[in-house]
Amino acid sequence: MTSPAARGLADDAAVLAPPFGDDLVLTHDLLAEGTHFTSACPPGDSGWKLAAVNLSDLAAMGARPLAALFGAGIGAERDAPWAEAVARGLAACLAAHGCALIGGDTIRQPGGTTLALSAIGHAPPGTALGRAGAQAGDDLWVSGTIGDAGLGLEVARGLRPPDPRLLARYRRPTPRVALGLALRGLATACIDVSDGLLLDAARLAAASGVALALEAQAIPLSAPARRSGVAIVDLAARGDDYELLFTAPARLREAVVRAGRASRTPVARIGSAHAGEGLALLGPDGRLLPLPTRLGFEH
Amino acid sequence: MTSPAARGLADDAAVLAPPFGDDLVLTHDLLAEGTHFTSACPPGDSGWKLAAVNLSDLAAMGARPLAALFGAGIGAERDAPWAEAVARGLAACLAAHGCALIGGDTIRQPGGTTLALSAIGHAPPGTALGRAGAQAGDDLWVSGTIGDAGLGLEVARGLRPPDPRLLARYRRPTPRVALGLALRGLATACIDVSDGLLLDAARLAAASGVALALEAQAIPLSAPARRSGVAIVDLAARGDDYELLFTAPARLREAVVRAGRASRTPVARIGSAHAGEGLALLGPDGRLLPLPTRLGFEH
Repeated sequence: MTSPAARGLADDAAVLAPPFGDDLVLTHDLLAEGTHFTSACPPGDSGWKLAAVNLSDLAAMGARPLAALFGAGIGAERDAPWAEAVARGLAACLAAHGCALIGGDTIRQPGGTTLALSAIGHAPPGTALGRAGAQAGDDLWVSGTIGDAGLGLEVARGLRPPDPRLLARYRRPTPRVALGLALRGLATACIDVSDGLLLDAARLAAASGVALALEAQAIPLSAPARRSGVAIVDLAARGDDYELLFTAPARLREAVVRAGRASRTPVARIGSAHAGEGLALLGPDGRLLPLPTRLGFEH
Repeated sequence: MTSPAARGLADDAAVLAPPFGDDLVLTHDLLAEGTHFTSACPPGDSGWKLAAVNLSDLAAMGARPLAALFGAGIGAERDAPWAEAVARGLAACLAAHGCALIGGDTIRQPGGTTLALSAIGHAPPGTALGRAGAQAGDDLWVSGTIGDAGLGLEVARGLRPPDPRLLARYRRPTPRVALGLALRGLATACIDVSDGLLLDAARLAAASGVALALEAQAIPLSAPARRSGVAIVDLAARGDDYELLFTAPARLREAVVRAGRASRTPVARIGSAHAGEGLALLGPDGRLLPLPTRLGFEH
């Protein structure tokens, strides 16, 4: 669970020789009980999700995970086995992506639990992906399927019949690390879909200074999402998907498909970038669909 | 307040080219309202302290601060100006030590506030200090003065008359970054005094496999601490000093004094390392003094 760099956690800090000459890519995300997970959430799932949301940020940058620092503010009503289960869930997700846990801090706090992670990755100089590179004419792609986690949240809240697959998509998301690595040199811009496909698409469009046109029928949905009766536009405005949304030149279409296959991650072409700004959502007949007033979950 | 590496916080993560060939030194510490600071603590002081306790860990390793990631779980009763004041206090302490704030996450949470920081420093390969290198015959040194923060905590709690200097030592500690850098190549072992001089000395002794003999009269005290009427042994078992406790070969005594002078940090020789294990506290006549049952603040 810990790396030699942690020196058995015997020193004041961990020492790490970074990959020689590479850029470091660094992110930090928190999860709080009552905000991001409920008291009823299994502790191992909360730990997993903390790792996943941070690794998803590294994936969106095309960075290879290297090391992580974990902060646990354990709530007043939790015992040591609960805290250890959080740490085990965290460690399982980190280990699945080759990320060493090299240090951290565990404290007791009044009230609920707060979980913090800093994840550090690396990439050859200048190769990290960003949100700002999309060009008019690029294809727009997304990985996996959209909206499952939003439906899983409803399952967790008892608003929808039990469905282990949807619940797992909400509680134990899969960071698309391998795909992010495969997209270096292909994607012109990339973002992870954490707050809703439409909202994160709007962010990518704004950062790149382009307009994005999305074909609603091309947005990939799982079988349970299709059966849910929830409109595509609604599913595309829910958060917690942790898929990658990215642009790539149209001439690299085959290479993107190969990158998806090589990383065992489904990828779907859902639209294109154009001169202008903002989002357009197109129906099957090519007509503009109204955008929802709320594009996603704003923190 | 932020660095170019943060890319204006526009991407999913920050990108940083680390100092070529150096080791990275990484630490992560949390502060929670109700555990490490009270609701009455000025927000800027909480932010400052969060930075200081993390930079103190880097100082103990002899690392030069490079970058930090900040996580703020803002409690339900706090408003945006309060959260901004925390961030300003944090930024002031980081800036004073050349540490760039390159990213982070701010969330709302029920209950009190939780503050998380990951601090990253660097050192030439193999030069980072640790706790495990003390040798029998080494001198034992400490920076600054001991016990002021413990008295400052009593001031904060209204248990002692107002004293701005003691209060500042508790709320706005000074991480001994410059001294830590100056001790590379001199100190054989180093730890920061966060939980009490005696407890942290016991940790250094255990990590190094030596015994440490401390001369009680040599432990440096400030004028208010001398006047406090609190026994030295009691002051040496209180936390939050954030001074450096370190060992160095006796032949380097003059070099250590010069390192203190060059870093504008007072250093005092307070004892020596011996074969054996554990701590011995010696009175002015050379006789053994009884150790307190509680050597410091155990988390």
